[in-house]
Amino acid sequence: MVGAAEQAVLALAATVRSPGATAMDRAWARLDSLTKPPRSLGRLEEIAARIAAVQDTDRPVGTPSAIVLLAGDHGVVAEGVSPWPAEVTQQMMANFVAGGAAINQIAGHVGARLVLADIGVAGDTSALPGVLQLKVRPGTRNLAHGPAMTREEAARAFLGGADLAAALVREGVTIVGTGEMGIGNTTPASALTAAYARASAADVVGMGTGLDAAGVSRKIGVVERALAVNPSDASDPFGTLAALGGLEIAGMAGVMVGAAAWGACAVSDGFISGAAALAAVRICPACADYLFPSHLSAEPGHRIVLDALGVEPVLQLDMRLGEGTGAALAIGIMGAACAMMSGMATFAEAGVSGRDDT
Amino acid sequence: MVGAAEQAVLALAATVRSPGATAMDRAWARLDSLTKPPRSLGRLEEIAARIAAVQDTDRPVGTPSAIVLLAGDHGVVAEGVSPWPAEVTQQMMANFVAGGAAINQIAGHVGARLVLADIGVAGDTSALPGVLQLKVRPGTRNLAHGPAMTREEAARAFLGGADLAAALVREGVTIVGTGEMGIGNTTPASALTAAYARASAADVVGMGTGLDAAGVSRKIGVVERALAVNPSDASDPFGTLAALGGLEIAGMAGVMVGAAAWGACAVSDGFISGAAALAAVRICPACADYLFPSHLSAEPGHRIVLDALGVEPVLQLDMRLGEGTGAALAIGIMGAACAMMSGMATFAEAGVSGRDDT
Repeated sequence: MVGAAEQAVLALAATVRSPGATAMDRAWARLDSLTKPPRSLGRLEEIAARIAAVQDTDRPVGTPSAIVLLAGDHGVVAEGVSPWPAEVTQQMMANFVAGGAAINQIAGHVGARLVLADIGVAGDTSALPGVLQLKVRPGTRNLAHGPAMTREEAARAFLGGADLAAALVREGVTIVGTGEMGIGNTTPASALTAAYARASAADVVGMGTGLDAAGVSRKIGVVERALAVNPSDASDPFGTLAALGGLEIAGMAGVMVGAAAWGACAVSDGFISGAAALAAVRICPACADYLFPSHLSAEPGHRIVLDALGVEPVLQLDMRLGEGTGAALAIGIMGAACAMMSGMATFAEAGVSGRDDT
Repeated sequence: MVGAAEQAVLALAATVRSPGATAMDRAWARLDSLTKPPRSLGRLEEIAARIAAVQDTDRPVGTPSAIVLLAGDHGVVAEGVSPWPAEVTQQMMANFVAGGAAINQIAGHVGARLVLADIGVAGDTSALPGVLQLKVRPGTRNLAHGPAMTREEAARAFLGGADLAAALVREGVTIVGTGEMGIGNTTPASALTAAYARASAADVVGMGTGLDAAGVSRKIGVVERALAVNPSDASDPFGTLAALGGLEIAGMAGVMVGAAAWGACAVSDGFISGAAALAAVRICPACADYLFPSHLSAEPGHRIVLDALGVEPVLQLDMRLGEGTGAALAIGIMGAACAMMSGMATFAEAGVSGRDDT
């Protein structure tokens, strides 16, 4: 028996359609007519073509853009999986509101609007101006002991993210980046990655925000227990998300599927956002065409996520902060790709000679 | 007997000083105090620290920035090393002036000013508004038959670039990117790379702007002949630049050394700009601390250049266009790094808790 919220998730996922080959062919026809040797801008052209296909145009635009930063806490911090106290999630929300965090500066630099939402912080953030109150519950349950969320809770978090994406797209946003804040959330990201990509806990677990070797070893044990007490079923990706995920992870998956459903590009950030992307694509395979992975995180599980998604990131800067910082940098590159594709002259327009041999 | 222009090159190079360890220590002290796990922004923090050291501050700025695009032609095109006719160099200058090229769009996107100069175009560009006339001669000689430039010509091109950098820094520019336009210029870049890095012609030569296999093979032969008729001496890097380089390559080396001499960051672009960077560092080793390689080009010789420089690029997007397009994208990332370092709050300022274990 599937609840109403989960039915809405499945219904939304069913609306997503791949852009199709015609849109991509038109994009490449324009790119190959511009004043440069064909394909000489490499991956920048591939990015431009994909955005153009999503927008069904040969003059894609990268603005306005937004970063949706979802915050949630994690019951699994009781297992000692993070060297940072859980109250940092709430404190960082105040820092985001005050403009003092990395994402404030980087999103500001690339011109992306920063949208903050509490989707599951353990403390009260309602006094913080500008923080959308989408809280499903004050933190997840401890996934080492049982499901982190009920299916209903995960569906509500997912729909919260999807609704946010829909509202942004209605306001004209063409690229929606995802970011997160949640002390302990590399543990659910590791568990989800292991379950979806059929990898071992030891392969996906990393140092997170700064664990030592003993901490990493403990975290591997926690992920192994989580996988044992929450057996996953490949035919039920949403159930896996609920059992092993986090509220902000389910919310980010919803942002990605929502962006795709409404015709916008979605950008994943690091390992946690990447695990959300993997959930999104398993729940809604067609959303892969709308998804742009921003960077390869220093977390070892992120490589496994990207391999499972079958995509290459835009950047490789050994970042492992989260918050959407990698997504914001990638949005800068995506904007440059759009400017290039839409603003360049063709050989004919510029009166530039072609190759001698063609 | 060293001519006056070459004496001025050597005098300029001798003024460049490394920023020193104290400036770098101060940069890292601030970076480690900001509200993020230490070093969690990976290479973005390294970039910020290096810029801060250059600027001798712990609040670096990435604006205003500029791309200096130098254009020159190459006598070696007589050997059939490019599939594009040489008049494309001049035609593309008109395209840059009209705003229709890739660099116009990408520099515009990142907010970098584009400065155009004719330092050695075979045709007349004097009717193009905004193109600085720094022409040393209308194209180089054919380096497969003898030196591409006299030492005096190379020195005048180098000083033209250095003076341009000095003027930009006087106007407040903090980051100077380099770009080039010159049909045939992957051939001198290959010859310079082979000479400086002691690599074989076959290792450094690539497809350039679109040679087929037979063309690549012919180009390898041309580079081998160039190296044979212009034997290089490791103790005379400037002589190597003159014999095997190009006017825009010597000019870009001058931009880089000039930026360093005046305390600004210099950004190299792809393979040709990278060969100029290698020349700059061989002529003026201290300028390496001011130099930021932007991207890894699809040209095989660029990896050899970066290994010889001992640095890693910011981006890897399989680009091989030139014009400064990779430098402009990197300037966007460098600006984000500066915004992050200068604008973020410290843990103390934000009232965010530290780690439990420290």
